[in-house]
Amino acid sequence: MLTRSQVLSAQARAAQMLAQAGIAITPEEHQNVEVAEFGLGELEKTGLELVVYVNTDRYCAKELILFPRQTCPEHRHPNTAGNPGKMETFRCRWGQVWLYVAGEPAPAPQGRPPMGSEAFYTVFHEICINPGEQYTIPPDTLHWFQAGDLGAIVSEFSSSSHDESDIFTDLRIRRIPEVI
Amino acid sequence: MLTRSQVLSAQARAAQMLAQAGIAITPEEHQNVEVAEFGLGELEKTGLELVVYVNTDRYCAKELILFPRQTCPEHRHPNTAGNPGKMETFRCRWGQVWLYVAGEPAPAPQGRPPMGSEAFYTVFHEICINPGEQYTIPPDTLHWFQAGDLGAIVSEFSSSSHDESDIFTDLRIRRIPEVI
Repeated sequence: MLTRSQVLSAQARAAQMLAQAGIAITPEEHQNVEVAEFGLGELEKTGLELVVYVNTDRYCAKELILFPRQTCPEHRHPNTAGNPGKMETFRCRWGQVWLYVAGEPAPAPQGRPPMGSEAFYTVFHEICINPGEQYTIPPDTLHWFQAGDLGAIVSEFSSSSHDESDIFTDLRIRRIPEVI
Repeated sequence: MLTRSQVLSAQARAAQMLAQAGIAITPEEHQNVEVAEFGLGELEKTGLELVVYVNTDRYCAKELILFPRQTCPEHRHPNTAGNPGKMETFRCRWGQVWLYVAGEPAPAPQGRPPMGSEAFYTVFHEICINPGEQYTIPPDTLHWFQAGDLGAIVSEFSSSSHDESDIFTDLRIRRIPEVI
């Protein structure tokens, strides 16, 4: 759970990173930057900032902003009632991001699960995404990602987004932000 | 129809505009920049350059690059066999673009149909899109757009893209590029 002051501070920091990367957002989008701290109380380590550009019943586009070494924890977008889960393409715009999916584990991964949460990270096949590079994650596929030392800005292009149905490996996680 | 040399020149110019706006693409994407001249032989006036990031059966994302005052001619994405046509969101990243759809015509439109093709432009409700601003076009909706004096870079987020089924007001137009 975040205080209003923590939210405003994270929003300002995210907006500053976007500006530095030459990515324009409106004042309204700045005010609405979503600060996801996943209920763990350690936003700097486990968290994600999002600008949702559009989310219709057909497609979705967001900008994801990660502070240096910030981690979006392991999760998947499940198939439901005969419908495939969310499919998403991550395109790095600025900085660097390491994405982890199932497969041959990296012998020396560049990202590290946040200390104290190691048990909730189970896939370690590493994809390093630099600016201009991208990777598409199929539906219902476990994945997590972490920014490099400078942070990262990642465009997410996807099918419709239903964050509330995401399934996290760490059952302590609450995806929908709560502000006190 | 374009010569190979014209294609290479337009690709280089588009890549330069992207670089200037801080938008990274891979060398392979540079080589594959699509140069659409619509079969009219006047690329500077009527044309569009595209980088297709991803186009699946669920969603699509592209970067559209328009040279100064370059125009994407009036067209719509038709509904077919019970399926709604393509729905698309244009988000301006750099420069300025004027989008025209049906509705109250602008008393003094900032864009102008390319000279000699005026008969094929029928909608004049103007939406001016600056960096950080966006507009969503419903399926089967006539629209055209033109860049401002500096050109424009526009992210297009959409449902699946099937360019070959686009319907243009100007029946002379050939959407799929031909290179001689």
